[in-house]
Amino acid sequence: MRHDGRTADRGRDVTIETDYLLHPEGSVLISVGNTKVICTASIEERVPPFLRGSGQGWVTAEYSMLPRATGQRTHRESSRGKVGGRTMEIQRLIGRAMRAVVDLEALGERTVWIDCDVIQADGGTRTASITGAFVAMSMAVAKLVSEKELKKFPIRDYLAAVSVGKTEEGMLILDLDYVEDSAAAVDMNIVMTGAGEFVELQGTGEEATFTRQEMNALVELAEVGIQRLIEIQQDALGSIHEQIKQKESDEA
Amino acid sequence: MRHDGRTADRGRDVTIETDYLLHPEGSVLISVGNTKVICTASIEERVPPFLRGSGQGWVTAEYSMLPRATGQRTHRESSRGKVGGRTMEIQRLIGRAMRAVVDLEALGERTVWIDCDVIQADGGTRTASITGAFVAMSMAVAKLVSEKELKKFPIRDYLAAVSVGKTEEGMLILDLDYVEDSAAAVDMNIVMTGAGEFVELQGTGEEATFTRQEMNALVELAEVGIQRLIEIQQDALGSIHEQIKQKESDEA
Amino acid sequence: MRHDGRTADRGRDVTIETDYLLHPEGSVLISVGNTKVICTASIEERVPPFLRGSGQGWVTAEYSMLPRATGQRTHRESSRGKVGGRTMEIQRLIGRAMRAVVDLEALGERTVWIDCDVIQADGGTRTASITGAFVAMSMAVAKLVSEKELKKFPIRDYLAAVSVGKTEEGMLILDLDYVEDSAAAVDMNIVMTGAGEFVELQGTGEEATFTRQEMNALVELAEVGIQRLIEIQQDALGSIHEQIKQKESDEA
Amino acid sequence: MRHDGRTADRGRDVTIETDYLLHPEGSVLISVGNTKVICTASIEERVPPFLRGSGQGWVTAEYSMLPRATGQRTHRESSRGKVGGRTMEIQRLIGRAMRAVVDLEALGERTVWIDCDVIQADGGTRTASITGAFVAMSMAVAKLVSEKELKKFPIRDYLAAVSVGKTEEGMLILDLDYVEDSAAAVDMNIVMTGAGEFVELQGTGEEATFTRQEMNALVELAEVGIQRLIEIQQDALGSIHEQIKQKESDEA
Amino acid sequence: MRHDGRTADRGRDVTIETDYLLHPEGSVLISVGNTKVICTASIEERVPPFLRGSGQGWVTAEYSMLPRATGQRTHRESSRGKVGGRTMEIQRLIGRAMRAVVDLEALGERTVWIDCDVIQADGGTRTASITGAFVAMSMAVAKLVSEKELKKFPIRDYLAAVSVGKTEEGMLILDLDYVEDSAAAVDMNIVMTGAGEFVELQGTGEEATFTRQEMNALVELAEVGIQRLIEIQQDALGSIHEQIKQKESDEA
Amino acid sequence: MRHDGRTADRGRDVTIETDYLLHPEGSVLISVGNTKVICTASIEERVPPFLRGSGQGWVTAEYSMLPRATGQRTHRESSRGKVGGRTMEIQRLIGRAMRAVVDLEALGERTVWIDCDVIQADGGTRTASITGAFVAMSMAVAKLVSEKELKKFPIRDYLAAVSVGKTEEGMLILDLDYVEDSAAAVDMNIVMTGAGEFVELQGTGEEATFTRQEMNALVELAEVGIQRLIEIQQDALGSIHEQIKQKESDEA
Repeated sequence: MRHDGRTADRGRDVTIETDYLLHPEGSVLISVGNTKVICTASIEERVPPFLRGSGQGWVTAEYSMLPRATGQRTHRESSRGKVGGRTMEIQRLIGRAMRAVVDLEALGERTVWIDCDVIQADGGTRTASITGAFVAMSMAVAKLVSEKELKKFPIRDYLAAVSVGKTEEGMLILDLDYVEDSAAAVDMNIVMTGAGEFVELQGTGEEATFTRQEMNALVELAEVGIQRLIEIQQDALGSIHEQIKQKESDEA
Repeated sequence: MRHDGRTADRGRDVTIETDYLLHPEGSVLISVGNTKVICTASIEERVPPFLRGSGQGWVTAEYSMLPRATGQRTHRESSRGKVGGRTMEIQRLIGRAMRAVVDLEALGERTVWIDCDVIQADGGTRTASITGAFVAMSMAVAKLVSEKELKKFPIRDYLAAVSVGKTEEGMLILDLDYVEDSAAAVDMNIVMTGAGEFVELQGTGEEATFTRQEMNALVELAEVGIQRLIEIQQDALGSIHEQIKQKESDEA
Repeated sequence: MRHDGRTADRGRDVTIETDYLLHPEGSVLISVGNTKVICTASIEERVPPFLRGSGQGWVTAEYSMLPRATGQRTHRESSRGKVGGRTMEIQRLIGRAMRAVVDLEALGERTVWIDCDVIQADGGTRTASITGAFVAMSMAVAKLVSEKELKKFPIRDYLAAVSVGKTEEGMLILDLDYVEDSAAAVDMNIVMTGAGEFVELQGTGEEATFTRQEMNALVELAEVGIQRLIEIQQDALGSIHEQIKQKESDEA
Repeated sequence: MRHDGRTADRGRDVTIETDYLLHPEGSVLISVGNTKVICTASIEERVPPFLRGSGQGWVTAEYSMLPRATGQRTHRESSRGKVGGRTMEIQRLIGRAMRAVVDLEALGERTVWIDCDVIQADGGTRTASITGAFVAMSMAVAKLVSEKELKKFPIRDYLAAVSVGKTEEGMLILDLDYVEDSAAAVDMNIVMTGAGEFVELQGTGEEATFTRQEMNALVELAEVGIQRLIEIQQDALGSIHEQIKQKESDEA
Repeated sequence: MRHDGRTADRGRDVTIETDYLLHPEGSVLISVGNTKVICTASIEERVPPFLRGSGQGWVTAEYSMLPRATGQRTHRESSRGKVGGRTMEIQRLIGRAMRAVVDLEALGERTVWIDCDVIQADGGTRTASITGAFVAMSMAVAKLVSEKELKKFPIRDYLAAVSVGKTEEGMLILDLDYVEDSAAAVDMNIVMTGAGEFVELQGTGEEATFTRQEMNALVELAEVGIQRLIEIQQDALGSIHEQIKQKESDEA
Repeated sequence: MRHDGRTADRGRDVTIETDYLLHPEGSVLISVGNTKVICTASIEERVPPFLRGSGQGWVTAEYSMLPRATGQRTHRESSRGKVGGRTMEIQRLIGRAMRAVVDLEALGERTVWIDCDVIQADGGTRTASITGAFVAMSMAVAKLVSEKELKKFPIRDYLAAVSVGKTEEGMLILDLDYVEDSAAAVDMNIVMTGAGEFVELQGTGEEATFTRQEMNALVELAEVGIQRLIEIQQDALGSIHEQIKQKESDEA
């Protein structure tokens, strides 16, 4: 039994509130237990220098935490004058994950900027960010289609992320909260598509190691968790669901 | 008649949602029309170097906007590696304003960190930040009292802020939204106490000037607006209201 | 009686030495009591990106203090690698103030750079900077006219600034020096035009507040002080005075 | 057949030249094909603030590439004034990996600084860095033992890293060089111990995805590659090998 | 004949105005032709970390130019967020030069901060800075003696600097102004003591070279120039001259 | 007798290993005793803004030390976020020295980037960098000629550098190692051409001074040292030697 009463294979409650903000082309507030992240998607009608003239689009992400998203106040990266390694790692991961399901040529020469701002943190902020960002991005891109800026919907499949881990006692668990994450011996973040394929798999022993058998068991826990998240994304996306399915079958 | 149907002396709808976040000692979400700011107050049990050993406390503030708080995405100050002049100006103003109503000796050698994060901007973000921050700070400080960390409540009076301005056509108006602010000839931000005294008055002609008569009329508009904000603060603060009143009469 | 023998409504001795430096298009050394600021105006034949192609010009300002302008040596902002909040606030104020009296369309697509470098500080450096910068800017712009780069003189009116304040004992005084400024309960900086209109009004209670009546009395003190400064500017500007008057009557 | 004639499961030639530099406590030049990295380990007799007084040691790493390690000259991070996201990601990975096999309590309150400087890059610089850094660290720590600074050798097991990947044509290959890495659909970096347990597993689809079956096949390729690297490390370490084996059996 | 009518071995007019500023312990305005530098010396009662507890003092220097010291406005190093290579080179030179004539043990554990701020530049700003800084430093240190903070005057000898150079036509000249400096084939800066010994000699061919014979002729020109500067320093220092002579004979 | 048995006028053993790295257009590993520097030359087909359209090329240099090039680990300049004064001074010196022997017009509108990375430091890193960089640059430029990118070889003469110094005991010595350099009273770095002319001469008293006679004796020591270095460069350059000689006689 876990400290909050969950079984090993049970994720936390998840809600995705769409159109959370007025200005962005796509925006959600995703809650995974007490973790809350505002994810927005903004369309910019140009691409980074290395893509100019290529006809291809780009997706990039930035991630941040409010100073009091955490139990102890953390210093703002703007005040310190630089972005830390953890933040860089996370925002590179979010961008890379999104690009895996976007047909960048179909997107055309424009950039989707993903912003994930954690307003409350209780473990799993990077996976919640990816799961929420996918919905925000889908909404922003669907808007381009409905406004005839894009002829075809360019997103190929669903994409969600979850963490799994091994406790110090050796229990394998799904969707770690902060208390569990701080004490975990192994921590693994997995990003998968609706088709059940991997986009990213990052397993880390925290001054510890893990066996191949444990790796396989962790992956299985994650698969269950991600399927449930994708159902919640479907509900949140409403009619956009059809567009994703259509793109998927076009590709196949 | 104003573009949103308000009369010249009418402020926008204001709500203050208290205990908005789980971790901070005090937190609110303040909405002033479409402007939404998360204000938190954090207690740190030490003071900046220049106050060490003085027995006196400190209040300081940081302010930021999410990239898509605005119609066009703005770059993060953390990514650019420095805090801009506008941000510095605002956070210095918020800190200074708070300190005007706090008995820093009664606070003891601790710092109240105010964080104002604008999640949606539609004009008046600095005045909404001050109005919300006062509530968050009062809650954090009341918690110190209820936990016996502080013997006496150290806040002397209410504090709220509003903007007033002169349109290009010469109309004087209360509580400008973004559309009005962008076009205003004169912009004035006023911070006042519950007793109706000024803490800060910043009037600026935007490539324009204003007369003494106009200044007086603007100040009168602001007084009305601020009284209404203080009533909303009272409702939000509930039983803490009595503590402020007690401190006020102790001081008198 | 004040510590240096001045009456409450008496400003310090002011001198403005024009053509102080060899290279700038306009330059002065302004002394206000022991406060000494070198103000220069430089013409650059281009504008910031947001104005390109608009036919309109710009005025911007930078402000700095030599390390030993002050009683204790202060660290250079260049060595610390960033410009502090106080500096940013002041240089934004100087630029905004200048723009209020310049017809930016008549200036054409060029930028006037104002540099204010405090070589000796004894209170009132920002107001001395504004008063001196106006003279330097007028000289630089007059040079453009005399060299036929500009057809019409684009400055509409005089502009000067002064500080007023309330002492801890409640006395209202004009033109605070460092000793008075450090101890003041209320500090107000006022920028006005030759026509007696406000360009900027910034009143701040330093852990204190002020009433409407006090505000009015402070403004009256400032009006007297500014009229005197404008007379000194007129003397310094010599024949350029006629050009300002001509522009003023053209506008009227 | 691969572009350089290797079979899918064949790693490149590896050499580890020990005591490569005069000053560091441990140093190697590791060559993996044309990839060459100088790895040094330095002992500092203090720990970061969060460990002071804990009796526990620390291992941390920094990584850099010479500007012409690459085909095109890259800008120095020192000249640009900040460390990029890729560099941060890699140096965090190296440090975390090392810590997984070090008994930090047995190390005592001292820090091992790992520096990995790539002098020539041809793919796999991060895995070569880990493999080389392990040898440099072991030598530096063995020196502490031989100088009686440490009573017991604190490293529990061997540690090495390799990359595996999937080509665009779907072939799974071991130890990608630059040409292969640039074109790969899936890229996976794996860090393992001598006992064959995982320390880190990072698989990334580059605008592509991978199945569970592919993941398993990639992991198997990596296991083969890492065993060979550990044999080369053993040869390089000479008599230190006994100390690692002793620590391993003490722990078991 | 030179462009300003000087003969090859003639330096420009030099004036040194002492006690130029109110606050610093020592300050001068030095003018060398049209080059004008404010040099100040500040005493700080502590030393950098590497000297703490050594009983020895330190002298360090900072150098800067006002944006319009030059014909074209240069960007402020504070706004650009970093100090350029030329500035660093010059301030390191000034500090090193000063230390060559100060008995750092006799100075005791305190730092002399030298600040050289060029308000007008016309060639030779680094040599004017050294010549002026020596006077400011001597005054600051003499003040320590007269206030009984120091028992013995710690400066051993005079110190001054001058530039010499070779024109494109091969003429060897003393004390180059900006026009000459810009066109010079060889530029040499020489710092010497009152006793005629070298402290620093920096000769540079600007896309050109120089022979041993030319080097010797340049050094002879410099010797003449420096003797004249030291006489001007003596006049400026007045009674402090005796203290330097006394220290000199004590040392001998 | 010196601490390592050398006579006063004897330089350390020097080797220059050419084509040390795979990717750069020119690269060497130069060893001067225990000092080892990787010098590379990279060709970039554009010039800095101030030369665009001039038809003229440019040579610029960057210098760095690995953290454990030294006895104590030094912090990376990339991690500290800025390049220090010593580094700037050295890289400016290297670039300037190279330009003195390159016919920049004959080079055409391209930049030669010199990178000097010290992997092991034992005194004289800047002079070893210059001596090695000359060889790397010559190789890169010869490659442009052999690939018909350049019609004529643009390097006019050999260029090498050495340090000389005065010990505390007054002995004048050639090519100081770290132990000697740390204790030297006078330190002089000299850059000369094959024709025996000076390009740069930097003599510094370290809290000490030197006479004209000592200066002359030091220069003579340097001349001997440099001649020997140029012979070693000739051997390293092989057939490129003829190209330099040809250019030299063309110029004459």
